[in-house]
Amino acid sequence: CEVKVAILTVSDTVASGAGPDKSGPRAISVVNSLSERLGGAQVVATAVVPDEVDKIKYVLRRWSDIDRVDLILTLGGTGFTPRDVTPEATKCLIQKETPGLLYAMMQESLKVTPFAILSRSAAGIRGSTLIINMPGNPNAVSECMEALMPALKHAMKQIKGDKREKHPRHV
Amino acid sequence: CEVKVAILTVSDTVASGAGPDKSGPRAISVVNSLSERLGGAQVVATAVVPDEVDKIKYVLRRWSDIDRVDLILTLGGTGFTPRDVTPEATKCLIQKETPGLLYAMMQESLKVTPFAILSRSAAGIRGSTLIINMPGNPNAVSECMEALMPALKHAMKQIKGDKREKHPRHV
Amino acid sequence: CEVKVAILTVSDTVASGAGPDKSGPRAISVVNSLSERLGGAQVVATAVVPDEVDKIKYVLRRWSDIDRVDLILTLGGTGFTPRDVTPEATKCLIQKETPGLLYAMMQESLKVTPFAILSRSAAGIRGSTLIINMPGNPNAVSECMEALMPALKHAMKQIKGDKREKHPRHV
Ligand code: NA
Repeated sequence: CEVKVAILTVSDTVASGAGPDKSGPRAISVVNSLSERLGGAQVVATAVVPDEVDKIKYVLRRWSDIDRVDLILTLGGTGFTPRDVTPEATKCLIQKETPGLLYAMMQESLKVTPFAILSRSAAGIRGSTLIINMPGNPNAVSECMEALMPALKHAMKQIKGDKREKHPRHV
Repeated sequence: CEVKVAILTVSDTVASGAGPDKSGPRAISVVNSLSERLGGAQVVATAVVPDEVDKIKYVLRRWSDIDRVDLILTLGGTGFTPRDVTPEATKCLIQKETPGLLYAMMQESLKVTPFAILSRSAAGIRGSTLIINMPGNPNAVSECMEALMPALKHAMKQIKGDKREKHPRHV
Repeated sequence: CEVKVAILTVSDTVASGAGPDKSGPRAISVVNSLSERLGGAQVVATAVVPDEVDKIKYVLRRWSDIDRVDLILTLGGTGFTPRDVTPEATKCLIQKETPGLLYAMMQESLKVTPFAILSRSAAGIRGSTLIINMPGNPNAVSECMEALMPALKHAMKQIKGDKREKHPRHV
């Protein structure tokens, strides 16, 4: 496995057992289907937390600093309701912002729905881990990943410090 | 009235009495014309302040924390001149950024003029109040509001914590 | 000379003498070719630093606070590798963000390559100096500058406080 992926479902409903996790399994299947295009990606960890900053941060920190996964996808908690705090937790932890990934996801998502502008997703690098917030809607994960695919494999190589990957066109 | 709107004109010229407020009245009329599509919006307060961070912050804080309006539109002070500080004052107060709104406004504004890229507008949520910076040009308010309309009513419901509104497609 | 431009090449390879500076000379030639459209731009300073936050900040601060150049273009260090820190150094120093410039550069760059989303460029104003991060790829400088050209001359006038330039359409 070349690219270790971890998936964090952020949802009060799922965390409390009041409803099933529809986004998490969908995200796993999306990653599996894109595995080769991502340079050999595999989901090595999943978790569910409620919409609470501390609990989100705890898992993100553990996966990036201790387990050193390559890519973390969070699912949900990116909207405008009072409980939506995933971007705030994420921004606490990332050391380098990656705004171009957000641009690509927004551009693609707007082709599907005008509600896309209500996504407050953050994305960035912590150590050698790329963290990307995705909307909670199960269909959105696939659309957002597709938006990133043309460059994501390259991104993962750069984060790992591959010098040969340092000067592609435009970066 | 379901959606209480407050409009803040930020302008040294208007605040000093050296010129008329052209943007404020235009913004009121735009909000009134969009009232139904916004779920029953009504302008409940207006004010004019000079281009000074402290004065902008004072009004934004009062309207969000005490008067608890639902939506604040600021007009002007978003450009590149030394006196333009509306985004800086706004960023001091917002607790959650809403970058998708800025994306939509930029995308729409660029259809009208290439000078749109000189807007430094910020937008975000403070408590249960959505604050959006708009350019000072009277025509721009209408264009920017139109850019947000497909999702703004939904945004206002989410901010108020409407659970039914929590999981629309993509957010 | 109406618009003083300084160009900072950020590259471990060039700074250590292990390779030639391809981006810097290209950027000079781009600025020269656009000089008139920028209102009389001239490159008044160039420098090369390694990918280190402190060294980047030192030059940016000197050029903006002491030499008071009007426009600083940085070249390189905007990608995802561990050594890429130009945006972080830049964000430390800018007092006002100019996100519309980044939007325009991203939009244009995406027409050339999907890898454009790996640019983490920052841009903003420090005092009366506009600082813009550009990718290290020599071709990218020209493309990014073209994306900004319709509004950049206007931006420079606004930064200098030209009141006549204060209320263009949309700003
Ligand atoms: Na776009």
